[in-house]
Amino acid sequence: MKNAFYAQSGGVTAVINASACGVIETAQKNASKIGTVYAGQNGIIGALTENLIDTSKESKADIKALKHTPSGGFGSCRYKMKSLESNRAEYERLIEVFKAHNIGYFFYNGGGDSADTCLKVSQLSESMGYPIQAIHVPKTVDNDLPITDNCPGFGSVAKYIAVSTMEASFDVASMAATSTKIFVLEVMGRHAGWIAAAGGLVADNIPVVILFPEVDFNQEKFLTAVDKNVKKFGYCTIVVSEGTKWADGRFLAEQGTRDDFGHAQLGGAAPVVANLIKDTLGYKYHWAVADYLQRAARHLASKTDVSQAYALGEAAVNMALAGKNSVMPAIIRTANNPYTWKIESGELKDIANVEKMMPANYISKDGFGITKACREYLQPLIAGEDYPPYKNGLPDYVVMKKHMVEKKLPPFEA
Amino acid sequence: MKNAFYAQSGGVTAVINASACGVIETAQKNASKIGTVYAGQNGIIGALTENLIDTSKESKADIKALKHTPSGGFGSCRYKMKSLESNRAEYERLIEVFKAHNIGYFFYNGGGDSADTCLKVSQLSESMGYPIQAIHVPKTVDNDLPITDNCPGFGSVAKYIAVSTMEASFDVASMAATSTKIFVLEVMGRHAGWIAAAGGLVADNIPVVILFPEVDFNQEKFLTAVDKNVKKFGYCTIVVSEGTKWADGRFLAEQGTRDDFGHAQLGGAAPVVANLIKDTLGYKYHWAVADYLQRAARHLASKTDVSQAYALGEAAVNMALAGKNSVMPAIIRTANNPYTWKIESGELKDIANVEKMMPANYISKDGFGITKACREYLQPLIAGEDYPPYKNGLPDYVVMKKHMVEKKLPPFEA
Repeated sequence: MKNAFYAQSGGVTAVINASACGVIETAQKNASKIGTVYAGQNGIIGALTENLIDTSKESKADIKALKHTPSGGFGSCRYKMKSLESNRAEYERLIEVFKAHNIGYFFYNGGGDSADTCLKVSQLSESMGYPIQAIHVPKTVDNDLPITDNCPGFGSVAKYIAVSTMEASFDVASMAATSTKIFVLEVMGRHAGWIAAAGGLVADNIPVVILFPEVDFNQEKFLTAVDKNVKKFGYCTIVVSEGTKWADGRFLAEQGTRDDFGHAQLGGAAPVVANLIKDTLGYKYHWAVADYLQRAARHLASKTDVSQAYALGEAAVNMALAGKNSVMPAIIRTANNPYTWKIESGELKDIANVEKMMPANYISKDGFGITKACREYLQPLIAGEDYPPYKNGLPDYVVMKKHMVEKKLPPFEA
Repeated sequence: MKNAFYAQSGGVTAVINASACGVIETAQKNASKIGTVYAGQNGIIGALTENLIDTSKESKADIKALKHTPSGGFGSCRYKMKSLESNRAEYERLIEVFKAHNIGYFFYNGGGDSADTCLKVSQLSESMGYPIQAIHVPKTVDNDLPITDNCPGFGSVAKYIAVSTMEASFDVASMAATSTKIFVLEVMGRHAGWIAAAGGLVADNIPVVILFPEVDFNQEKFLTAVDKNVKKFGYCTIVVSEGTKWADGRFLAEQGTRDDFGHAQLGGAAPVVANLIKDTLGYKYHWAVADYLQRAARHLASKTDVSQAYALGEAAVNMALAGKNSVMPAIIRTANNPYTWKIESGELKDIANVEKMMPANYISKDGFGITKACREYLQPLIAGEDYPPYKNGLPDYVVMKKHMVEKKLPPFEA
């Protein structure tokens, strides 16, 4: 009977731990078929350095609490494995560690890069005579993986952005007659506007202008749209993606601000947009940058998102036990209204390194809003609430005890 | 039987509408003693311009929904009445409008300035032979009113900041081994550090450095404190008040950043602090500016805060019916553990234009944290959750219909 290895990869989310919980609980339910789940401390680096966490030493209650805890319970990393050609030794080390700890299942919880790593580990392990079943568990707030209808982590960020846009808009609406008329919210999404699109989920009577990375920033058209809203509604809310660019490819956020010493300052897109409006239209503004708050906001997670994150972890183990290899459990939308979904397995070779962009028909003709098709797609993903338990006014999030497995190999020299 | 006038003043909060709900519902329960509650459209300006909203024309369900709706349901304004000496006409106009609509009760929901206005209206109305009972209903996220133990609106902001600090810290903790080690969160509070202090409510095993407006920014001491945390915990979270200043009195946020054209850029304190750490210690950072999100976040309101906001609105009407004048219902803390409180009436002459600062013994010796006394004070204020109802994944906030009362006076020329 083989043990399993689980690792979290890349930027963490409000629900990646729900997937971890799904993997671990499902493995424990199948204790006659699958051994211990070892988790990589700080992701795949934990495997390379043989820093493995024994999840069987965590209490059942703590593992269960992962389902309502944001962040990466075992640590994550932004370490990208090099290509097989340029650093074969790294992949071989991974397989050596797996072999030393009798690991036959590799569950890798991440985005496009980790799907690629998963695929390579599976291929190489076979050629090395120690075959590993590698299953990728999707996760990314960027929502950019192919095959799966959506990615766990995204729905909760989308809910956070939609709710925050709504709340700030209510605030500004009630002050606009004599004070602030412009509110700018900067959101994540360097390449794709999925997260920014969530700002469009508020009701039609809330004037929101969205700036997508997919649409070149046109200052004149933008200011006209903002001014029209202020004249009609008394105020305007702007949701700007951090990835919004001028037509020449520069990011809005790189507006060339310098401090007193002449050093380039990395600002944000929000203050740039806010200052632009002030300088041209003269309206008083406020701006916010949500940054990590948006992806860590488990207190406002989408119930759909939490359910799917858990279910995908569960499905990954079941696929492994069914003998599958080099696959990823993917969400398939079966109906929109009411929303239904199921899980099917997708081939890693079709997923690795493919980015799913927003379809052109999801962005409104003027480039500043979302279409009905986009709304229908997004709506179910933010549906439902799934509150964590609270203690003394704060969420009762869990911190893993992290019992380390004894090392069996000499240290790895990369 | 006299009617009542209710107005919202200054920056709105997650729970000022709960006070409005308390005023209106309590007046309606006493329909034999008090007439219609008219609300000022956009605050006191609505009285000056005779733009009164007839709250009796709103449905009972909509008035009830105010309790779970952030922002100012009737509109607010930052309009400060001038002194009685310099603009007596304005006060006289107010009283003329009250007289024209048979208004005998004035409920003003705001901070220090509005307490002052309340007092003056009461005094002048008596000398004009049309006595108005003026009751101030406290509201301010700044928590800086005297006599009352705390101010409605503050507890919910504090909860939002504490939860956000905790969630972002969990996020950074799980990435710090290979990526971001510093997270900076900028919070409101230009004069007092009450809101920043809430960042200190997270557990002791989360390394948080707080920058208060009360403590001159000492770059060297600050960097030492941050570095110590990174070396011990692997990361550090910084909560910086927008009001943090250098020893020479300049705000951190006015760091002198200039755009390509040499224009001064209004940044925020967060990017300044983040860049400072990067330039000196070299750590990778992320930063967020919560801005209006923090005071509008009804989705994460403190139950204590919502209850108190409603109870103060209720108490204001009851005090008016008991014949009181020039008073403010104030929260009196009767015990800490378990937390109990009651409402007593305070005299407006003791409240108007007095700012309550953070006691010196609430800030830790090193100037970067909160003391046990501060924690004991803050803890009960963020206790309990009070979720709004949701519809299609978004809070079901109410928008008032705003039936306007027919005008009886010629327009006012200020």
